[in-house]
Amino acid sequence: MNEYSATKQLARANRAFYEAFEALDLDAMAAVWATDAVVRCVHPGASMLHGRERVLASWRDIFQATDAIRFELVDLEMELHGELACVHLVERITTTAEGAEQVGEAVATNLFARQDGAWRLLLHHASPLARRLE
Amino acid sequence: MNEYSATKQLARANRAFYEAFEALDLDAMAAVWATDAVVRCVHPGASMLHGRERVLASWRDIFQATDAIRFELVDLEMELHGELACVHLVERITTTAEGAEQVGEAVATNLFARQDGAWRLLLHHASPLARRLE
Repeated sequence: MNEYSATKQLARANRAFYEAFEALDLDAMAAVWATDAVVRCVHPGASMLHGRERVLASWRDIFQATDAIRFELVDLEMELHGELACVHLVERITTTAEGAEQVGEAVATNLFARQDGAWRLLLHHASPLARRLE
Repeated sequence: MNEYSATKQLARANRAFYEAFEALDLDAMAAVWATDAVVRCVHPGASMLHGRERVLASWRDIFQATDAIRFELVDLEMELHGELACVHLVERITTTAEGAEQVGEAVATNLFARQDGAWRLLLHHASPLARRLE
């Protein structure tokens, strides 16, 4: 695969992650993550979760606790490193729970690995964005 | 290089990062980071910094504002992916500034790339550890 195709597929895989999150769709979220490696996930402010079972359980809990969530993805950058790729971005997050809308920002590192020709998520590390550095 | 040697060298490179931090030694810190790629750094709660110049400037600022810092590294895991490698860990941090000691924890993803036979840091993403998930 050439780099242009790989980058396009990477962008699509990254989008699929946020679309699954917005849809609160656990099957779609499960399809995003790698199945042939230990996956890891850090939700903002939380400890690191290991393994598909615990990671997907955390998404189930988040989806159950969320009425609606929307992402605006900004400052997105992609880095290809052969069979691995990193997507870095800022998530502008609007959530609705019990009728109240909340807005926040997180910095995310999404590490993908190529599995069976498709980019699958190995690591999502999100951290609260509380201060902007120059 | 076999995987055992690569893992040992990776552990050493990761240790060198924290040793440079504890020593508040900017030259040692500069030597840890890759020179042949765009490097990125997320300090806990902060935005993502890009490029050696801005990343090293942030370390200079941190070193100037710090009297002493000590790390205990726990839950450390290493993943080799050919010419890239990830180190995941929890940083137990004790800082002293203006005579007062503070203790905190951060979750870190350290992504290394092999450059000229040595592991060099591409990305340090640290996030505050405020809640432990099961």
